[in-house]
Amino acid sequence: MISELDILNCFQHLVETPIDDAQIVVGSGDDAAVIKSNIKDLVHSLDVSTVSKHFPKNSDPKDIAYRSISTALSDLAAMGACPSFISIGLTADSKDIQWYKNFTIGTEQILKDFNLKLVGGDITYGELNICVNVFGYPYKKPLTRSNAQVGDDIYITGKLGLARQGLKDFKLKKKSEFINYYFKPEPEFKKSELISPFASSCIDISDGLLKDLKTICSQSNVGATIDYEKIPIHNDMHDLTYGDDYVLCFTTSKKNSDNFQEPDFYKIGQISNKKEVVIKKNNKKLEFDKNGWDSFE
Amino acid sequence: MISELDILNCFQHLVETPIDDAQIVVGSGDDAAVIKSNIKDLVHSLDVSTVSKHFPKNSDPKDIAYRSISTALSDLAAMGACPSFISIGLTADSKDIQWYKNFTIGTEQILKDFNLKLVGGDITYGELNICVNVFGYPYKKPLTRSNAQVGDDIYITGKLGLARQGLKDFKLKKKSEFINYYFKPEPEFKKSELISPFASSCIDISDGLLKDLKTICSQSNVGATIDYEKIPIHNDMHDLTYGDDYVLCFTTSKKNSDNFQEPDFYKIGQISNKKEVVIKKNNKKLEFDKNGWDSFE
Repeated sequence: MISELDILNCFQHLVETPIDDAQIVVGSGDDAAVIKSNIKDLVHSLDVSTVSKHFPKNSDPKDIAYRSISTALSDLAAMGACPSFISIGLTADSKDIQWYKNFTIGTEQILKDFNLKLVGGDITYGELNICVNVFGYPYKKPLTRSNAQVGDDIYITGKLGLARQGLKDFKLKKKSEFINYYFKPEPEFKKSELISPFASSCIDISDGLLKDLKTICSQSNVGATIDYEKIPIHNDMHDLTYGDDYVLCFTTSKKNSDNFQEPDFYKIGQISNKKEVVIKKNNKKLEFDKNGWDSFE
Repeated sequence: MISELDILNCFQHLVETPIDDAQIVVGSGDDAAVIKSNIKDLVHSLDVSTVSKHFPKNSDPKDIAYRSISTALSDLAAMGACPSFISIGLTADSKDIQWYKNFTIGTEQILKDFNLKLVGGDITYGELNICVNVFGYPYKKPLTRSNAQVGDDIYITGKLGLARQGLKDFKLKKKSEFINYYFKPEPEFKKSELISPFASSCIDISDGLLKDLKTICSQSNVGATIDYEKIPIHNDMHDLTYGDDYVLCFTTSKKNSDNFQEPDFYKIGQISNKKEVVIKKNNKKLEFDKNGWDSFE
């Protein structure tokens, strides 16, 4: 039988604050963490990942940790913010101490990959559930969803459908280069910093390009026309609605075109005043019903 | 069948940011919230509450919300910090929209009671689990657990065992004034502000006085001697180990005695250099074994 203390010990090395850390006044281990004041505004988001819904039951705990944190960080990238620190509320029911050790390996990996501090956490027993809180500061200005302007170009920062392919391969127990796109989606911080001075609106594609672009449109009170042929997809049209891509979708004034070239940035359409998202293929408007797509291929 | 949107709509009125809010630059509804920079350091903690472990399965969702948030806030009080804003990761499996409406009523109540902003959240489907993130700023200085000094007096800010009685009454379906002590523990912010300039260390009593005082002692590298007769308890000696009280336990130099009088503050003992927590009754040292207390009453 493992105790709460055994589990806490697994995390100990991740939360030890070096004495000379200028940012963390009080680290984990007290009632709360104290983070040094900053002249920049604080950007904060959280994401809950649950077993079966956000990752398969048989996932490696290293991957569960990496993916839960990575997908939460993606919201900061979408906001034009540089990540700085995180905290984690972990609920788990494993009775195997190795499970927790592996979870901390995945956590440590992503802390290193993005130079982050873990400033606090809570661990409790129950159905596997990871609440990841992320904190950062704007590169330039916060990129909201609500400021897309009629006439702006619409860009995405990568191919859609790679994670979808990866999850499919994982479920089939196939060795595949795509599995990492599912378990280790890389939040687009570098591109976030690049677009930060130019973007009028931004969102990360977690729920599928169409749904997320619709969110930009409804919150900006505009519409969009996108060109099916210009969208880089891996599989088929369902890549537009599947999600899990965690690339960015942003809008920017036409005058900024020169800054954004393939293969880092794909111009896929334009913001319109029509209050709907229209997809065109060969200049023909595609329709899809509530249950998904009309067959058109 | 209720949709995610139906649930989100229940929370909408809680996250609408007034345009003239000086603290929230971007509120909920975007990828992340943006909180205005502050010259004071940020104090942050989180607490996960799960069904059956942190509240009974048949609890009213209003009470679940209030208690989950209240117990998380208590960590800020223990840190000498004034609460400012919160965010919530809610995982729930109810298919009844009224459950969510009631959860928001409890949330709204505590937001009002402590003048807090809800700046973000995430809702997902699964076993009931509430991750509450709390944020505040020090009244004076952060009150850590690690600075108790030999010779300091030890105080607690209220009676122990009231919540224990309340939970017992709730389970027996008894009408009782104590049930509110369990479901609506009041974080001790007023007293936290009062002690903030004077306390050398502080913790909130969530796991029982003895365990929490031991935490102060081990983190401060000291011991403590407390006087059983001076501890205000409701039931019996098990009130010292039960927890759920959420009153504060703090230490302060003897010279500050005049500031701390009953019934707001109870002086229960002294910090020693013995590296153990000793409880005395009629000048006799009480022993208790791993399973709890030796019978001595």
